[in-house]
Amino acid sequence: MGSKKFVFSFEEGDGKNKKLLGGKGANLCEMTQIGLPVPPGFVISTEACLAYLAKKRKGLPPNLVEEVKAAMAELEKKTGKGFGDAKNPLLVSVRSGAAISMPGMMDTILNLGLNDETVEGLIKLTANERFAYDAYRRFIQLFGHVGLGVNDEVFDNIFVEIKTKFKAKDDTQLSAAALKETCQRFLELVEKKTKKQFPQDPFTQLEIAIEAVFRSWMGKRAIDYRREFNITRDMANGTAVNICTMVFGNMGDDSATGVAFTRNPATGENRLFGEYMLNAQGEDVVAGIRTPNPVSMLRREMPRVYRELENLRRTLENHYREVQDFEFTIEKGKLYCLQTRNAKMNASAFIKTSIDMVNEGLITEDEAILRIQPDMLTQLIHPRLDPKAKAQVLARGLPASPGAASGKIVFDADKAESKAKLGEKVILVREETKPEDIHGFFASQGILTSRGGKTSHAAVVARSMGKPCVSGCEAIRIDHLAKEAVIAGVSLKEGDIITIDGTTGDVYQGVVPTVEPEFVEDLLVLLEWADEISELKVMANADTPEAAEKARKYGAMGIGLCRTERMFNQPERLPIVQEMILAENTEEREKSLEKLLPFQRDDFKEIFKVMDGMPVTVRLLDPPIHEFLPSEEELMREIEHLREWRKTIEGMANLPETLSLLDPELHSKYAASLEMITHALEELKNKHLAEALIREKEAVLQKVKALSETNPMLGHRGVRLGITYPEIYSMQIKAILEAAAEYIKEGGNVAPEIMVPQVCTLQELLWVHKYVTKIHKETEKKYGIKVPYKFGTMVEVVRACMRAGRIAELAEFISFGTNDLTQATFSFSREDAENKFLPLYNERGILQHNPFEILDIKGVGRLMMITVEWARKTRPDIKVGICGEHGGHPDAIRFCHHIKLSYVSCSPPRVPIARLAAAHAKLKEKEYHCV
Amino acid sequence: MGSKKFVFSFEEGDGKNKKLLGGKGANLCEMTQIGLPVPPGFVISTEACLAYLAKKRKGLPPNLVEEVKAAMAELEKKTGKGFGDAKNPLLVSVRSGAAISMPGMMDTILNLGLNDETVEGLIKLTANERFAYDAYRRFIQLFGHVGLGVNDEVFDNIFVEIKTKFKAKDDTQLSAAALKETCQRFLELVEKKTKKQFPQDPFTQLEIAIEAVFRSWMGKRAIDYRREFNITRDMANGTAVNICTMVFGNMGDDSATGVAFTRNPATGENRLFGEYMLNAQGEDVVAGIRTPNPVSMLRREMPRVYRELENLRRTLENHYREVQDFEFTIEKGKLYCLQTRNAKMNASAFIKTSIDMVNEGLITEDEAILRIQPDMLTQLIHPRLDPKAKAQVLARGLPASPGAASGKIVFDADKAESKAKLGEKVILVREETKPEDIHGFFASQGILTSRGGKTSHAAVVARSMGKPCVSGCEAIRIDHLAKEAVIAGVSLKEGDIITIDGTTGDVYQGVVPTVEPEFVEDLLVLLEWADEISELKVMANADTPEAAEKARKYGAMGIGLCRTERMFNQPERLPIVQEMILAENTEEREKSLEKLLPFQRDDFKEIFKVMDGMPVTVRLLDPPIHEFLPSEEELMREIEHLREWRKTIEGMANLPETLSLLDPELHSKYAASLEMITHALEELKNKHLAEALIREKEAVLQKVKALSETNPMLGHRGVRLGITYPEIYSMQIKAILEAAAEYIKEGGNVAPEIMVPQVCTLQELLWVHKYVTKIHKETEKKYGIKVPYKFGTMVEVVRACMRAGRIAELAEFISFGTNDLTQATFSFSREDAENKFLPLYNERGILQHNPFEILDIKGVGRLMMITVEWARKTRPDIKVGICGEHGGHPDAIRFCHHIKLSYVSCSPPRVPIARLAAAHAKLKEKEYHCV
Repeated sequence: MGSKKFVFSFEEGDGKNKKLLGGKGANLCEMTQIGLPVPPGFVISTEACLAYLAKKRKGLPPNLVEEVKAAMAELEKKTGKGFGDAKNPLLVSVRSGAAISMPGMMDTILNLGLNDETVEGLIKLTANERFAYDAYRRFIQLFGHVGLGVNDEVFDNIFVEIKTKFKAKDDTQLSAAALKETCQRFLELVEKKTKKQFPQDPFTQLEIAIEAVFRSWMGKRAIDYRREFNITRDMANGTAVNICTMVFGNMGDDSATGVAFTRNPATGENRLFGEYMLNAQGEDVVAGIRTPNPVSMLRREMPRVYRELENLRRTLENHYREVQDFEFTIEKGKLYCLQTRNAKMNASAFIKTSIDMVNEGLITEDEAILRIQPDMLTQLIHPRLDPKAKAQVLARGLPASPGAASGKIVFDADKAESKAKLGEKVILVREETKPEDIHGFFASQGILTSRGGKTSHAAVVARSMGKPCVSGCEAIRIDHLAKEAVIAGVSLKEGDIITIDGTTGDVYQGVVPTVEPEFVEDLLVLLEWADEISELKVMANADTPEAAEKARKYGAMGIGLCRTERMFNQPERLPIVQEMILAENTEEREKSLEKLLPFQRDDFKEIFKVMDGMPVTVRLLDPPIHEFLPSEEELMREIEHLREWRKTIEGMANLPETLSLLDPELHSKYAASLEMITHALEELKNKHLAEALIREKEAVLQKVKALSETNPMLGHRGVRLGITYPEIYSMQIKAILEAAAEYIKEGGNVAPEIMVPQVCTLQELLWVHKYVTKIHKETEKKYGIKVPYKFGTMVEVVRACMRAGRIAELAEFISFGTNDLTQATFSFSREDAENKFLPLYNERGILQHNPFEILDIKGVGRLMMITVEWARKTRPDIKVGICGEHGGHPDAIRFCHHIKLSYVSCSPPRVPIARLAAAHAKLKEKEYHCV
Repeated sequence: MGSKKFVFSFEEGDGKNKKLLGGKGANLCEMTQIGLPVPPGFVISTEACLAYLAKKRKGLPPNLVEEVKAAMAELEKKTGKGFGDAKNPLLVSVRSGAAISMPGMMDTILNLGLNDETVEGLIKLTANERFAYDAYRRFIQLFGHVGLGVNDEVFDNIFVEIKTKFKAKDDTQLSAAALKETCQRFLELVEKKTKKQFPQDPFTQLEIAIEAVFRSWMGKRAIDYRREFNITRDMANGTAVNICTMVFGNMGDDSATGVAFTRNPATGENRLFGEYMLNAQGEDVVAGIRTPNPVSMLRREMPRVYRELENLRRTLENHYREVQDFEFTIEKGKLYCLQTRNAKMNASAFIKTSIDMVNEGLITEDEAILRIQPDMLTQLIHPRLDPKAKAQVLARGLPASPGAASGKIVFDADKAESKAKLGEKVILVREETKPEDIHGFFASQGILTSRGGKTSHAAVVARSMGKPCVSGCEAIRIDHLAKEAVIAGVSLKEGDIITIDGTTGDVYQGVVPTVEPEFVEDLLVLLEWADEISELKVMANADTPEAAEKARKYGAMGIGLCRTERMFNQPERLPIVQEMILAENTEEREKSLEKLLPFQRDDFKEIFKVMDGMPVTVRLLDPPIHEFLPSEEELMREIEHLREWRKTIEGMANLPETLSLLDPELHSKYAASLEMITHALEELKNKHLAEALIREKEAVLQKVKALSETNPMLGHRGVRLGITYPEIYSMQIKAILEAAAEYIKEGGNVAPEIMVPQVCTLQELLWVHKYVTKIHKETEKKYGIKVPYKFGTMVEVVRACMRAGRIAELAEFISFGTNDLTQATFSFSREDAENKFLPLYNERGILQHNPFEILDIKGVGRLMMITVEWARKTRPDIKVGICGEHGGHPDAIRFCHHIKLSYVSCSPPRVPIARLAAAHAKLKEKEYHCV
């Protein structure tokens, strides 16, 4: 032990050995050794700390004391200053630093070496008495507290007294004299409390400070912190102590202090960026008494130092190969670099600098790609609130779909549509949304709901459209009759303006300015590089030609999921869909379907055009058909209203008789009443209409009741519908293949893929395949051309996983529908779970995440692995993808790459994120471990 | 080919070589060779058939003709008769017979050898001219049709003419003369149609007949049959021809014909059982002109032959080692055995004879066990309709729970209970049942519903109680107001008697007599043998002490599933349960739970007593709590009624005022009105009551709405409840452990097992385990004794299968809940699937079975295999069982044995079936292949 070296100068410490030197210490060594002008100093190793603690804190090991003294002598030599020298005093900082950063856990002592004499030297050197006494009183308090154990509050109390005495509102108003008095009173306090004079000997100060840092490692705060963050001894054992020469930017007009970035962190521009203040210390910058100057001004003020700063910038970037955010001080014309770290930048600057660094040969393309966290791209995709805007949050809901938007409040989808047609920007505000509100989504800038989670209908649809949505904002009460909403006590009427931020879940009254997304050129470059690396293809979930356009814009390589039911919900189609559902028999149903066919065919054709030649995977009808009908409650309410109307009409039945009894001569006298009567007569003609409407609604109600299900999630839907109503699937298949044929005839390329949902057995697939082959033959005959297509299935039913080997006999591709698959795997109904128990489960750590947001790799993922394995055994080249919402999340994408899926499919705005994540997955595949 | 032997006498043919000799031929050889008095004969092999067909049917192979002639000469020698001999003619039957039986596919020709001369000989020998001509005319028609290709109808037309001429209503009324004339006209017909005389030469007849049989193998009927039943050439190729001497039981009083069983097939008694008729042919027995005698009478009438018959019986049983059902003929004192096959018996006779045969050393215990199909025991467990009773079926529903019962119709559970208390037998008739109807199940003889499948609530509960149930009987319309049901047009009132047969699904008006089950001693013996063989233990699903009693009676080795919620539903407890659910906070809820605790504890204690020392697996609360509250609809109806009541009361508000205005002297005059007014005043006092009730119901309605779920199957239930309301599970755990402690203190043995439902992750289990260890410690302290218990989980959520390895770290046992697991695996909601699409799926063969009835081995089974494998990897000795409804089904049991489960658990009445099936599974394990 005695022979072990404990102290390492910044020049000799191993910059990689954080375990020995602590993170900060290693960093200082590294900075020094790459030639940065770090103020001289040394590190006392973590081993010294352990040695001290092993001795049960009975003083510093003697050899350590000797080494420290030698190192101090070295410092004096390097700086030309003397430790305790009253004229040119060497002052140092003493900082702790463990292998793992534990911010705020242990204290830092500055200006160690100050005493009654050296403070005078400092005054002379800085010509700033106030500064020197301020530094001294801070040092006495901190050292007294940390090193000598004097209660911090007692210092504070004295300081309050001083401020009262000198009538100062805060520290900055205290004069040098007042601060000098403070020092005096602090010194007396320490003497009183410790029964000893405040140590005036700098070496004594240093030893006490070192011991204090060592002890802090086993302090309660530090122990708690390590437990909280699971920092084991393997990761960090003991703290190092960093002793570094103090430098002063306030030693005259040839001194300064500043903060700079090696490139502009807001724009990424490759130019030194920062601020400095002449003759000042860091505190002055913080205090904001003077305005700092842009660093470019330094070029004129200190050209030599500026050149050094430019050199420093280059050295930093050449070494760290990332944009650096560094602190510097100029002491009497000498530049020091005190600290450096990777700069925090917004996404576009981060991307720009990364690409520039590739072009400059500083980093490789792979490094540039890995540097950008995929989720960071969110910033580039959605409008966001202007960070400079100051606005009061009115209420907070769930951040259900990112982006920000302002608009006039509307309470229903029809109103949204009519207002939007007039060019108004609206926000749709509802308790919750339903599929029939879909036109309201199209018309709105954003959606705000009072109920439902991040995977509610509103959230899912909004995300798929890339529109902002705040869901489950419970502070909202909507009064539909009054067309009014009370949000957190504030009453807002239809037409009042609000702003929602779907990235944070915040809701604001009035307009809050937003910043438009910048889909920068650099991003395109980065994503192209990413695509070259990725093995996973990235497709988009897009249901309409507009969404397909968006998908292409974001670089989707095809459509992985086109949900035909979204098309059903458009206002001009829904009545036909309802008519089809209400049909009494197959013939009638076929007639309605005949009317739907052109709509669907045109949609598909448009989509094929947009995607020209790329695969377009169309999923046949999935939801239970009762979703297209009004709810039981709604119908009952409507019938009730109609009955009341009828009653009113009936109440008027006697009026005409009364009229006939009336003396014709009186007619003119009672003109007003007569008008009423005439109106009544008009209304009476409506009686039959009212009755017909009631009958009609009652028939619908009957059907809705007949179709109602105990567990619609597990009910009559998907392929089960396709088999019980073959005419529905047949129409859709016809629409797809005819659209393809028509576009081919126009000279286009198509790659349609027909995907069957909710399959649990090969037999179902065979059944639908029969329709497909028949219709395909008919279509090729009708158009006289070959129409290519692929046939496959969603895998979203657990049994399909178990039967993957058989299903792959027929399916040319399979696509994991992880939304439903997650529900089935957990036996969690998404809505019910998110409303009733999932938050508690997350809170208690029973489940780490909401599995509907973060793919559950251990459960659902395991099923997926088994499925892929069995499916590939039957058909080694089977195309396997994922089209659940998880498909756009980096963690899930990493897993998908790991199990060798062919593609992921996600909502268009997430496509860039997925492309980047796919490249990350490939680049980091070796370090990946799962399940 | 020329040298191959084609003809085998019954003495020389290999009884095992069905491929060569056909099934029938091989059988005749076997019978002959074990010494049965089979009439002499021989078999022409299937190879001869193939040789004939290969030659494109150009006549029989010459060597075959020679062999047949030689064989016929042999027959003449054996019988002492001559083929074509006019005095003592040898007649033969010619039958086809392929390796696989194809009943009715090819023809049989009897009495071949008859011609104008030999028919005279037959008359003399039988002294029965009518019989001889009848035989001859049949022979001519059949041979003419089959051998010579004359259209059958033409014969029939002639026969009709004859009957008209002789004024005979049917064949039996025709005299010998008439039949003789028939023969004459038939012979003329054949000559006319074939332009040849009817072949009088017996050998020519024989050759033609053999060729006809060969040809029939490639006839349309036979080809269709083989295609329909997937009979490949590997299984059967060509038909053999069996030629057998005709024997006649009508050759005088030393001749007879009869049918006998080697043991009594109704009782199993070990005594020859059967009937015979002197001087008769088989046809006479069928015609029913004379009554046959019991075979015992033969002992007196023909003592020697009777002894031979007894020998025959012994020979048959010694050889076939199963009870035989055989035909015999006595020709002139000589006994012939014409045919034998395994006797069909009812379950009790089958069991008795099997056990007897073991005791007689004829078969082994294993063979006895394998002989009884487990499902056969159903007969022994449930009362069934008296097969002799003649009753008209009124309607038909689904056979939802086996057994038959009669009783008075009641339309609600309360009425069922009140009537049952008066000692009346009732049948509960409802659209469908809900958990709160449970007391109605206890009170009823059986349940009849108009909606729901075989796995509806009614069906599941009825089966678990072993009560008959007919579900989904759509012909029923119930009018609750009128207390009347219209069943298939018949109007039945409450109190009218019906009978239901849950084994068939039939519903009858009035009482149909039933037969009580016989739980015979022999069955106990058989099941004991079975238990010794089985590796699977058989437990019962039992929720009450009564059910536990039943379970033990049926031989359950413990309780594999005790559902605590069934206990919650009892009428005196339900209000407390509802109070607990409606509680505003945890404290209030705990108070209600405190009241429930003694009930649950007493139940458990009773069950522990009944099962003394056997494992009792208690599942903590599983269903969503809203199941214990009335439905939204119901509440809304009640509130509506209350409001109307309040309105009525309010309408009376003016009456008292009117009264006060009334002249007091008039009071007496208006006594009647006054009485009404007094009543109104009384009612007015109720106004507050009405309002309070409305408020109360509205509060419940609010709660019901708040608790309502989109997909309750996947909702807030099971362990999710246990974690959100820890006080509920804690109460149940306390009840279990305290009950155990109390019973131990009374000197009993207990083996309680606490089972957590709906688990999807180890974390949930850990959470509940915390409660258990805490309460266990408290209980042991409170009672001052050790209380043993096991802790485990249901596996009914797919994710639990995926996480089985982790779950097994804590779970000492797991039990597959295949009902829910099947729902989750298929994404089928049971009720919705059975009502909407599952029947169609089964009909079209998309799914072979209803997976809720027959365990889906390919999907759910595969998941189970994976689960067992992973769980055992972590904990090799983990106890694994199944407690879904499938646990009582032989196919599922075979699979459970295959994957090495520790036990199956099923409803008490199915325990015997499961015990037998478990033994079968072990005995047949080598032949088992799955997935």
